[in-house]
Amino acid sequence: MSDPLQPGAVIGILGGGQLGRMLSMAAARLGFATHIFEPGANPPAGQVADRVTTAAYDNTDALAAFAKSVDVVTYEFENIPTAALDVLEAHRPIHPGREALRISQDRLTEKTFLRQLGLQTAAFSDVYDLASLAAAIAETGTPAILKTRRLGYDGKGQARLSGPQDASRALEEMAGAPALLEGFVDFSHEVSVIAARGLTGEVACFDPGENVHRDGILHTTTVPARLSSAQRTDAVLLAANILNALDYVGVLGVELFVTPQGLVVNEIAPRVHNSGHWTQNGCAVDQFEQHIRAIAGWPLGNGQRHADVVMENLIGADMDRVPDLARDPDTALHLYGKAQIKPGRKMGHINRIQRTG
Amino acid sequence: MSDPLQPGAVIGILGGGQLGRMLSMAAARLGFATHIFEPGANPPAGQVADRVTTAAYDNTDALAAFAKSVDVVTYEFENIPTAALDVLEAHRPIHPGREALRISQDRLTEKTFLRQLGLQTAAFSDVYDLASLAAAIAETGTPAILKTRRLGYDGKGQARLSGPQDASRALEEMAGAPALLEGFVDFSHEVSVIAARGLTGEVACFDPGENVHRDGILHTTTVPARLSSAQRTDAVLLAANILNALDYVGVLGVELFVTPQGLVVNEIAPRVHNSGHWTQNGCAVDQFEQHIRAIAGWPLGNGQRHADVVMENLIGADMDRVPDLARDPDTALHLYGKAQIKPGRKMGHINRIQRTG
Repeated sequence: MSDPLQPGAVIGILGGGQLGRMLSMAAARLGFATHIFEPGANPPAGQVADRVTTAAYDNTDALAAFAKSVDVVTYEFENIPTAALDVLEAHRPIHPGREALRISQDRLTEKTFLRQLGLQTAAFSDVYDLASLAAAIAETGTPAILKTRRLGYDGKGQARLSGPQDASRALEEMAGAPALLEGFVDFSHEVSVIAARGLTGEVACFDPGENVHRDGILHTTTVPARLSSAQRTDAVLLAANILNALDYVGVLGVELFVTPQGLVVNEIAPRVHNSGHWTQNGCAVDQFEQHIRAIAGWPLGNGQRHADVVMENLIGADMDRVPDLARDPDTALHLYGKAQIKPGRKMGHINRIQRTG
Repeated sequence: MSDPLQPGAVIGILGGGQLGRMLSMAAARLGFATHIFEPGANPPAGQVADRVTTAAYDNTDALAAFAKSVDVVTYEFENIPTAALDVLEAHRPIHPGREALRISQDRLTEKTFLRQLGLQTAAFSDVYDLASLAAAIAETGTPAILKTRRLGYDGKGQARLSGPQDASRALEEMAGAPALLEGFVDFSHEVSVIAARGLTGEVACFDPGENVHRDGILHTTTVPARLSSAQRTDAVLLAANILNALDYVGVLGVELFVTPQGLVVNEIAPRVHNSGHWTQNGCAVDQFEQHIRAIAGWPLGNGQRHADVVMENLIGADMDRVPDLARDPDTALHLYGKAQIKPGRKMGHINRIQRTG
């Protein structure tokens, strides 16, 4: 698939949440149709996609039929079963590719990969039982965080350890899953870089955003982030370093801790990322269109920012604020069409445009 | 329907072309689902809508079922048969309302309405046969344009008269349809105002854009338009005048000729308008979202422009330029997902953002 996709081509998206929804809308802007594959009924992305397949990731027939109906496959989340990827890839290219998925699906593999690239990460040790956890604590020190190696997101699958006495409780929370002990990083703030790499290897980065979390969920991203010029350059170069090492195609999110010793990579996400939502109202080509352009073999947008933006997630009962938010002329609303409001559920986000002068 | 619609409500849209498509995407951003009613198969809007009904406008059962499935009905074009409106309105509110449709469906009614508001229009006379055409020519003078009273758009249903000798040829082109002779207006340029009025009567206008046509089809809209401060005020006030007179709800397009004697209204369109597409990349709330906000009873965006923009339509073979256009960092692409490229067919548009400084 080295030729660019023509308008009218079909983009297959695994996962029908808000990221798949916004990818669908960006694809439509470029004249592409989308086909969503999602196990859950009535996914948010289904409302704006041309087709939806409702099937499980172990339904081989449904996966094959889905793949054959599209021109390229992409995804909104990284935890796609390997067997499903095998079926899909027999029929159509998958972007970002298997290597990016293999690495980002496992925290241990990911951190090892980042270290091999010469990047800084938190101290980490492999944990599979109480003895290995005790050894990890001795090496890493406390406080520390025990995390499952796979399938964690938004603070789930994590347990904090203030000291060795928390070891057995923390290990129980892993419920037998292989885990990783991560040392604390003494950082002043967290930023993220949303970067993209095209089919022909060109790289484009959006300006880094500064992230604030609440209850383990992203609360706001502010652009520009507080970074020195040197830090800004470092952030962009390390993102490009990661993209090139993975021969990556698509948008990648890189979360970074800012420390006196430089930038420490927290984690990478091989997909569009919540901390890149600000681009919808700050850039001519947003992260969703950038991702679609990359996987379609189109030229990338350059990521230039035309406005400062503060993105804020609308979680659960934040939806009560929508009538007031709709009244603010500098606030752009992005709601996800989710039928049920639940505590902790991402229902939408706003981008507040910061007027200069 | 005085309560604002809640996210999750369903917007019914008559017509599945590019305007319906972009209305659907704007509705989705606010968390609404959309249902398209369109006689033609595989409409562009269907690719991004939650539901599509494929049925003719005289299919009473389909119209009633459609109306019952939505919370409010709107439309992307003004030539909806009156009988269809009767069926729909028995079940759900229609915005913009019947009066706006009645007036804009007939050039004679529209021009009479505008004159009654004290606004300037081209000279016009009712034409139904050769004798009335001769009288009209005597009154209006030539050159002049004969236009069908109903169903004309993009230069269709029009015939130019250089002198009385063109009368019978021009009348033949009307194919028996009631017509209107319009005198030429000596104008320097054409501008349009995209204005909106909410359910509670508030009015918001976007900055006027300057339109250039080619072969009777809009070619570019440039914002800001060349207007004096006084002309800009006049343009906004007359748009508000029209909206209030119609007790209008939604977005309205007003095309104006700029003349030494002031602004002359060319025509009004009770819907989102091609000359308002620039707002997608120039305003926090674009014309499509503005229309959805209005008909949903939400507060309007204020229309403030954050960038100068030149919109250009991509017609037919202009699609060959897409690979080059995709490379321009200041160009935002909007393609309509139409399967077939035809001469004169609107395939998409671009918004070129004009960087200042």
